[in-house]
Amino acid sequence: MSVFCDYGGMFMSLYDGSGLVETIKTRGDVYSADCPCRDLLDVVANKWSALAIGALADGPVRFGVLQRQLEGVSPKVLTATLRRLEGFGLVHREVIPAVINRAGGPIDGPDSLIDASITAPGTPTGRDLLIEVRAVSVNPVDVKVRASSNRARKDRVLGWDASGVVLATGGEATLFRPGDEVFYAGSIDRPGSYASWQLVDERIVGTKPASLTHAEAAALPLTAITAWEALFDKLRLTTETTGTLLVLGAAGGVGSILIQLAKALTGVTVIATASRPESRAWVEQLGADIVVDHTDPDLARSILKVAPGGVDFVFTSQSKGRIPLFTKVVRPFGQIVAIDDERDLDFYALKDKAISWHWEFMFARPRHGWNLEAQHELLNRIAELIDAGRIHTTLTRALEPVNATNLREAHTLVETGHMTGKIVVAKHA
Amino acid sequence: MSVFCDYGGMFMSLYDGSGLVETIKTRGDVYSADCPCRDLLDVVANKWSALAIGALADGPVRFGVLQRQLEGVSPKVLTATLRRLEGFGLVHREVIPAVINRAGGPIDGPDSLIDASITAPGTPTGRDLLIEVRAVSVNPVDVKVRASSNRARKDRVLGWDASGVVLATGGEATLFRPGDEVFYAGSIDRPGSYASWQLVDERIVGTKPASLTHAEAAALPLTAITAWEALFDKLRLTTETTGTLLVLGAAGGVGSILIQLAKALTGVTVIATASRPESRAWVEQLGADIVVDHTDPDLARSILKVAPGGVDFVFTSQSKGRIPLFTKVVRPFGQIVAIDDERDLDFYALKDKAISWHWEFMFARPRHGWNLEAQHELLNRIAELIDAGRIHTTLTRALEPVNATNLREAHTLVETGHMTGKIVVAKHA
Repeated sequence: MSVFCDYGGMFMSLYDGSGLVETIKTRGDVYSADCPCRDLLDVVANKWSALAIGALADGPVRFGVLQRQLEGVSPKVLTATLRRLEGFGLVHREVIPAVINRAGGPIDGPDSLIDASITAPGTPTGRDLLIEVRAVSVNPVDVKVRASSNRARKDRVLGWDASGVVLATGGEATLFRPGDEVFYAGSIDRPGSYASWQLVDERIVGTKPASLTHAEAAALPLTAITAWEALFDKLRLTTETTGTLLVLGAAGGVGSILIQLAKALTGVTVIATASRPESRAWVEQLGADIVVDHTDPDLARSILKVAPGGVDFVFTSQSKGRIPLFTKVVRPFGQIVAIDDERDLDFYALKDKAISWHWEFMFARPRHGWNLEAQHELLNRIAELIDAGRIHTTLTRALEPVNATNLREAHTLVETGHMTGKIVVAKHA
Repeated sequence: MSVFCDYGGMFMSLYDGSGLVETIKTRGDVYSADCPCRDLLDVVANKWSALAIGALADGPVRFGVLQRQLEGVSPKVLTATLRRLEGFGLVHREVIPAVINRAGGPIDGPDSLIDASITAPGTPTGRDLLIEVRAVSVNPVDVKVRASSNRARKDRVLGWDASGVVLATGGEATLFRPGDEVFYAGSIDRPGSYASWQLVDERIVGTKPASLTHAEAAALPLTAITAWEALFDKLRLTTETTGTLLVLGAAGGVGSILIQLAKALTGVTVIATASRPESRAWVEQLGADIVVDHTDPDLARSILKVAPGGVDFVFTSQSKGRIPLFTKVVRPFGQIVAIDDERDLDFYALKDKAISWHWEFMFARPRHGWNLEAQHELLNRIAELIDAGRIHTTLTRALEPVNATNLREAHTLVETGHMTGKIVVAKHA
């Protein structure tokens, strides 16, 4: 039997492969080295978890091995030991390592992303999960938020794309238990995933695909949620839908998973835009039926050549200056779903063909507390599709460990706009 | 047996209640009073149709009784007579009365709408129908096109909402036969309905509701097509759809039929805006579940009071300055369908809640030749719903006959923006 021991900020929990064995709540304060339970903590340090070492360190804790699988320790012994620790009135206010954003501007500024210790999130309440982050992916939103934080404000933990393990669950949580491996994007209005631990509402968390590593899984949630909502909530495609879907920004993070979902779950013909040879190869590998070059000066003609009556659907993460293209290549009553942040588009020009414009913004649900469970469900569907081999991770680059140096490199790569697929920074190999 | 005789510009057709009996093509030129067939034309004049009287008049023809039902005349006799007329090489280049728009600006300008004689449309070809217009409705689009025609250009026949009778059909037409009573909006890129005769593609024409007069029917097509496309093509509501639909501009032409369709064919709760007592009474009579006052300085609060989670759907013909309202009262992932012509709306503000914006423009299909049959089918559905008593005409005011004076009055009423329902100008009582 495998036994895991988690030791969170305000709780201890002990569980095995079949589920939670025991959770012990502790009180808040800081361990001291002359704690009367020193001997027991040594046991913890040696046998259980690196967390407990941190608990003795009277300072920033290193969580290199937050959850170490232990062999040959009986749950009964561990439980008894935890009870003794509890009996001593153990107190534990955790500090966790994180990478924080302190100032906006270029990535090479001194305060763009820095290693730091931050106060650990408290015991989860309500439907929150406390999650140990194992890998985090960098998206354009990370870059945008980091670069634009140009006013004095509190340090911020960025990162909205992660894979990890549930450490503890809030009192009203029903979907997950400690030990569950999960992946999620989270909420842009809460602290992000560039930290060892993170609180996330379980309704926007899915079960990690069993066949993927945490790094491979972390590449998916934000883009998969976005692509899923774009295709199925916005365009409302079904398995019966045929016609043509133009994907602008096809080689990017969202495009890379959206093409796969469109091919796996609908009958549309995907016309993907790509320019560089590696991008073309990438989108073809993902399933694009036709590739057109978005740098083509007569892109409209190239598209109408393959979709003479105009395309039925458009997904765009590259809308800047594209309204004239859309009015030419989208058929009457066609639909466009956009995820980027263009404010000065001439939307009125779309009226002549009665074209619909859908904004897709995956943080709309968590921000406004609307129908959150849909993201839980769609992430689980994504995991099933991955495990069934019907779609694949979009991970193309992985760095480790999670620290400011690697996250700066990831931001730099995303900022160029030339990434194919996704970059992940992982805690473990 | 009832027998009708139509005598069109380039053809004669004879038919009875069971269908077309005969059509005789004639050549183009102008009748003269000393035509050798004078005696036969007298027969026509006396017994058949006022059209033939016009044919002798060497000038603008009066079409007061284009299709007169004749009793006691055998089809055989009529056919024989028509053949004789044909044998004389009869020639007929028709001039028809119309109301034309010669200049833009205010409705009281001398050339805004004037009585005139125009060349009749030729024999229908392809899928066109030649229709004798019996009644025409005035919509905001008429006012807009008339007022904005401020450059020198050809006289234009406005009018995109009519009820009438098919006089003749093009060689590829299959949906209608001469004598059929029809209603339609037509195409904004072709001459409109302020004329006795009009060519219209049969694929955007529906069978007139049998239970309505031409005036009652003419109130419907443009608004019913718009409302249908808005509810069912854009918002994709079904009989199963519940939730809330906010209707801005509820007492107007489109709003008046849209409320009825929403209540008859979906499960949504309709929140209608109206301010004046007569408008409130009108929208309540149409089926609105809740009426809010759009002049209320805290309209958002009033709406959220009845739809606490935000409304699911919005129809708007009054979008000016309303984006801040929409961002407050529309739920995340909500949908707005708009028909007006606001160019400077801050659409980007809708992204935060991932709201969809659908343009509805009923002329998009005819203008771009896309899926025209859908309008034929939906107009027939409208007629069925009317005849089944499930929805009702939105006619609130009728003037007669069709002339510049009455059309100027109708334009003036529409321009105020305070019409409840629709105004029609009809040829006959």
